[in-house]
Amino acid sequence: MYMAAVAVKEMPGLPDADLVTLSKVLMRVTARTVTALAAVPGYDQALRDGYALATDGVQRQEGMQFRVVGEIAAGSQMSQRLEAGSACRIMTGGMVPEGADQVVPQEECQVSGATVTVPADSLRRKNTFIEKKGSQIAKGEELVEAGTILQPEHLALLAATRHVEIEVYRRPRVGFFCTGSELVDAPGALRPGLKVSANGYLLNGLIRQFLAEPEDLGRVADRKGELARVFEKISAGNFDAMISTGGMGPGKYDLLEEAFVAAGGEILSRTLPMRPGQSTLIGRLDGKPFFGLPGPPGAVRTLMNEVVGPALLQMQGVREYQPVVARARLRERVELRRSDVLLVKAGMLSMTEDGQEVRLAGRLEPPTCFALFPPGREVYPSGSEVEVHLSWSPEVARLFRG
Amino acid sequence: MYMAAVAVKEMPGLPDADLVTLSKVLMRVTARTVTALAAVPGYDQALRDGYALATDGVQRQEGMQFRVVGEIAAGSQMSQRLEAGSACRIMTGGMVPEGADQVVPQEECQVSGATVTVPADSLRRKNTFIEKKGSQIAKGEELVEAGTILQPEHLALLAATRHVEIEVYRRPRVGFFCTGSELVDAPGALRPGLKVSANGYLLNGLIRQFLAEPEDLGRVADRKGELARVFEKISAGNFDAMISTGGMGPGKYDLLEEAFVAAGGEILSRTLPMRPGQSTLIGRLDGKPFFGLPGPPGAVRTLMNEVVGPALLQMQGVREYQPVVARARLRERVELRRSDVLLVKAGMLSMTEDGQEVRLAGRLEPPTCFALFPPGREVYPSGSEVEVHLSWSPEVARLFRG
Repeated sequence: MYMAAVAVKEMPGLPDADLVTLSKVLMRVTARTVTALAAVPGYDQALRDGYALATDGVQRQEGMQFRVVGEIAAGSQMSQRLEAGSACRIMTGGMVPEGADQVVPQEECQVSGATVTVPADSLRRKNTFIEKKGSQIAKGEELVEAGTILQPEHLALLAATRHVEIEVYRRPRVGFFCTGSELVDAPGALRPGLKVSANGYLLNGLIRQFLAEPEDLGRVADRKGELARVFEKISAGNFDAMISTGGMGPGKYDLLEEAFVAAGGEILSRTLPMRPGQSTLIGRLDGKPFFGLPGPPGAVRTLMNEVVGPALLQMQGVREYQPVVARARLRERVELRRSDVLLVKAGMLSMTEDGQEVRLAGRLEPPTCFALFPPGREVYPSGSEVEVHLSWSPEVARLFRG
Repeated sequence: MYMAAVAVKEMPGLPDADLVTLSKVLMRVTARTVTALAAVPGYDQALRDGYALATDGVQRQEGMQFRVVGEIAAGSQMSQRLEAGSACRIMTGGMVPEGADQVVPQEECQVSGATVTVPADSLRRKNTFIEKKGSQIAKGEELVEAGTILQPEHLALLAATRHVEIEVYRRPRVGFFCTGSELVDAPGALRPGLKVSANGYLLNGLIRQFLAEPEDLGRVADRKGELARVFEKISAGNFDAMISTGGMGPGKYDLLEEAFVAAGGEILSRTLPMRPGQSTLIGRLDGKPFFGLPGPPGAVRTLMNEVVGPALLQMQGVREYQPVVARARLRERVELRRSDVLLVKAGMLSMTEDGQEVRLAGRLEPPTCFALFPPGREVYPSGSEVEVHLSWSPEVARLFRG
């Protein structure tokens, strides 16, 4: 958990909040608590097709007759009060007229001319088939807390309670680039010693998964001039956060840090007490967070889940931004080659009837979690319990925090 | 599980597959198995900054010296073979030259002019710090099965193995409309007896969650003429599937079925053996599936998860399209008012250390699952085990099937 804390201790304030029309706020984050602008239902409504009856003062005897004085379809209303002893044809969802205290389903009623006969059993039934105004939601009731990621169900609630626009945080724009003179964008440009860059695809997808907007600034060779140019692009781009991959080791061409500082970047941390993460630059550039990640895609994936992603969520006001924690039993023996630092390994979680189990992810599997192996222990027999952080998505976070 | 089977027994064939550029296939569904077009790494690569050595035939004695004949940065290569007794400066990710059999990290080496001295310990180390061509992924290896929803990690794999385009199924276009003369689109149009339509927002979000493309055909009054017009729009729209809400009861203004048939629709089923779902029309229109759902948003939410969503997934070729099943212990006593049919109730799942627990969802909570109560039993004490279907998302499905 503390990894995110390291990353975000110097977070800038939240981005601006905008009023956004209801049809556009799916998966956006509420900037304030939202309450109902109107009750639901907004009027006493019939729950069956049938007859609304004014039974006031009427004896509930066998075969009681009511005079039918009108008809109310859904969407229409009756202008006058229903007098005792009168009935009104009404449709499901129709507005029950003043004076009516009961709806009886039509299949129980016998109609003859302007008279409807209702059996005593129906009259004596407790269920009036009337849903009272406000019985689902009261006006002013709190519907959604601030910092909530809006689900389809929330939008339905907000529409029903007469919201038109919702105040949500702006999605952070995240600029990213991948360094490495060996990287090309597409197979067409390959020569011996070159490879197609994979991290760009990974970051693009993961930044979206954390509900932010990625902007790819390209592949950058390990040369001062090229790095300086990408930092110029960054300054011009006015991003809310920035991510790089590669160029972070002790090597001769690992120039990221130097270029970052030359561009005016302020270093907050050069290492995290975890592996991967020991060569990870966390800094600030133009007041915005900068994450210099190592090059291997596995490390990028892990650090996105553990450090960068939670920071992106916090920046956009998500109330519960920290990694989603669970405990799981190892399905296999794990032997670590070192235990001087927290090891974070890609894992696959299984939900069993008596708890969660985890195994290490295969090289082709998108991990569903990351298993944490704290320093000081190298051997974990099968069945050992470990802490895992779920691969974050809004739905998985809701599931584990519900 | 059989609900989906009822819905989809008459499914049309899969939609067309298109070749789509790699940067656009996130969350799309693979139309065929994808194999590696190239090995990863594509060449023997150095895992450390240091010296690549040709030790062939060389005695691994104390303080062995090698003649430095060149330098290989990442992205460059050496044209000639490294002769025995020679060394070459190399960077992490650099292409190990032919003839070299070991990389020694630079911090272990002593350089003097054109000579590098390497200690015996380094020469005797098992780890060569060379990652052999194809050691991560072999050329031709199967990477992703057909019917897989592509995750960010898949895209990284596909890029690294030199894919430029991937054959994915077209996303189904789903036209939907909400019937009810009481419905308006926005609060501005409200009069007594009217309400703002919530189902449109719900369907729009849920159709997206099931990876399809929603197209809102609007609110439709309970009148034959209006219904006929929306069915004309549907015919013109050439959708892959269609959904309506409301107009499904036995009421006088429940005209959906009549309008559907008048428009040439073929009814496959008028009811499902579940509640909600007893008034649910499943049919075919212009050869495409049509789902006539009831009006209450809770019923719409449930039927989307249990019936329509799985059908949409199947239509777009998702291999595992059925509801995601788990078992959970009830956190509360549940007493049902009737048990003549399978009851499906919105629930909130909790992941505990010894298994899943479930409670019924509150009226303002987007459910994380749906609990199944089969017919024949009315009382479930707290702690009873029930089957639940998870609220579907690609990430939740992966988690429960990993």
